[in-house]
Amino acid sequence: MTPVKGYAAKEVGADLVPFDFERREVGPHDVAIDILYCGVCHSDVHQVRDEWGGSMFPMVPGHEIVGRVTQVGDQVTSFKAGDLAGVGCMVDSCQKCSSCVEDQEQYCDLGNAGTYNSTEMDRKTPTYGGYSKNVVVTDNFVLHISEKLDLARVAPLLCAGITTYSPLRQWNIGQGHKVAVVGLGGLGHMAVKLAASMGAEVTVLSTSPKKEADAKELGAHKFVVTKDPEAMNDIQNYFDFIINTVSAPLDLNAYLALLRLDGTMVLLGVPPEAPQVHAFNLIAKRRRLAGSLIGGIKETQEMLDYCAEHNIMSDVEVIPMADINTAYDRMVKGDVHYRFVIDLATL
Amino acid sequence: MTPVKGYAAKEVGADLVPFDFERREVGPHDVAIDILYCGVCHSDVHQVRDEWGGSMFPMVPGHEIVGRVTQVGDQVTSFKAGDLAGVGCMVDSCQKCSSCVEDQEQYCDLGNAGTYNSTEMDRKTPTYGGYSKNVVVTDNFVLHISEKLDLARVAPLLCAGITTYSPLRQWNIGQGHKVAVVGLGGLGHMAVKLAASMGAEVTVLSTSPKKEADAKELGAHKFVVTKDPEAMNDIQNYFDFIINTVSAPLDLNAYLALLRLDGTMVLLGVPPEAPQVHAFNLIAKRRRLAGSLIGGIKETQEMLDYCAEHNIMSDVEVIPMADINTAYDRMVKGDVHYRFVIDLATL
Repeated sequence: MTPVKGYAAKEVGADLVPFDFERREVGPHDVAIDILYCGVCHSDVHQVRDEWGGSMFPMVPGHEIVGRVTQVGDQVTSFKAGDLAGVGCMVDSCQKCSSCVEDQEQYCDLGNAGTYNSTEMDRKTPTYGGYSKNVVVTDNFVLHISEKLDLARVAPLLCAGITTYSPLRQWNIGQGHKVAVVGLGGLGHMAVKLAASMGAEVTVLSTSPKKEADAKELGAHKFVVTKDPEAMNDIQNYFDFIINTVSAPLDLNAYLALLRLDGTMVLLGVPPEAPQVHAFNLIAKRRRLAGSLIGGIKETQEMLDYCAEHNIMSDVEVIPMADINTAYDRMVKGDVHYRFVIDLATL
Repeated sequence: MTPVKGYAAKEVGADLVPFDFERREVGPHDVAIDILYCGVCHSDVHQVRDEWGGSMFPMVPGHEIVGRVTQVGDQVTSFKAGDLAGVGCMVDSCQKCSSCVEDQEQYCDLGNAGTYNSTEMDRKTPTYGGYSKNVVVTDNFVLHISEKLDLARVAPLLCAGITTYSPLRQWNIGQGHKVAVVGLGGLGHMAVKLAASMGAEVTVLSTSPKKEADAKELGAHKFVVTKDPEAMNDIQNYFDFIINTVSAPLDLNAYLALLRLDGTMVLLGVPPEAPQVHAFNLIAKRRRLAGSLIGGIKETQEMLDYCAEHNIMSDVEVIPMADINTAYDRMVKGDVHYRFVIDLATL
């Protein structure tokens, strides 16, 4: 075992504090990575505060990891020391079930091994995330990162990027499609950039008229204030696809009504209470309500390559490790454009 | 105008009684049909009792109509006197919007003209349905009926048949798919027959173990009692497609959990209260919740031809017109196998 420094919440809802723990020795299939940057995802706060239940402490959050390989196991051929590398929301899966075989490890029938607040596939060894100096991960779950991009701005692609890229690909969104993005945060701003880059007409739907300039700058073609009944009426039956990133309580029916025949709204966030869905709203235009969870490893690599090719990165605010608790408070208030990223050199 | 005898509800929730009214003269594009049989759909009761709001009285229900052509307008080339003909849930639509142009008149942007409890596209002239001796319909909305099948058993295909056939086709269900049918009534029994005929493995999900023999006789391969937690546990993540025909209050989440990765549950019924949907249930396996409304005219003809070719008909109980009120009471109790059909010779 190798000692490593990190930041952890020691119990539910506690502030994050310095935490010394150990990583496993590098096994034959392992890749050891010195972490350079780690994004701060809203789900980090949900889990530290145990808002989804089942949180395990001490918890070292962080699943938007980029860094440089320091050592690889003797069976590893795809990475070598000195390479850039990324780790997202998963560090392992059963690799045998139908989902894993189809490169959809996020839907592993046995449940994948989450990067933190989870266990390895032995279901005993706790996993600790990227708010730390280094990480050891089996090579199948390590991503290649281009040298071309700003690394701090690449980190959030590992969760916010793939979570929005995957449904856009799954539903074949591109030229000729009208896409709406609900919620202009970490996920939403990536959804706007990616959907626009794929050729779709992108509309941001927001409660706040203040966000219009930002939305347009990110690449949105249109902006609609959802509190304006007339503007909402003008876009009934309009969209082919709605990416709903909101995890706060929300009337889904008002958004479903904006879908045209055979349109789909995909949910990426989990509201605390199960929302009500009017069946007639689905039946009347053969609309579909769906969900999507991050993306598989193969698709994550495809997304990273796509972003490198199209120069797509997250808009970030880089913070020192010690500012993490303030960052959580600001993030909960929506006061971030659009992702905090921890510079691990400050730890 | 031509006088015609029918049965109508004169006001909300009233018993149906004999009612004399008038049909329009046969115009250049019209087909006049002497009605032989008319199916009794659960939505007839919903509308007579104004359970969906906006019901118009007097109301002559009935949208599962088969009969014989007596006269055609001089522009009609597809029908001639003596032909069998059918009329389903619609008698007209705008014919110009994108839905109509794509042969999906049921989703007409202006709203189609329903066969009863609706108006013609002039939005003034009330429409009266098939609980009557004859009907006059524009030729684009009249279906060809094969002489091969039992006409009383064909009538329910015009609504129950197309409502279940259309989603099976829309989601490309066939060999290799596992399909569940929830609710073994008028729609459900057609879903079982059609899905089985298309090569899918069909499971009926029912609260009542008594329905197992009937389900198997209709063509179901498996039967699961939904009140048996162990049996339900065995089919988690199992189905590719669930056809949910239930319009009573129902916990959709218990059924969504039965879908495998990328599986879809399609709702055909409208529960009185909007059901709650746990977002995580959709996200965890990229599941989809959808709705579907009858089918377009072209697809309805395709379904009728398919049923004639595969000898698929509804299981019915033929009743005289005067028994309609008793039939409604029995249908609300679920006491019908599986569709009442009115023999209009008794009127």
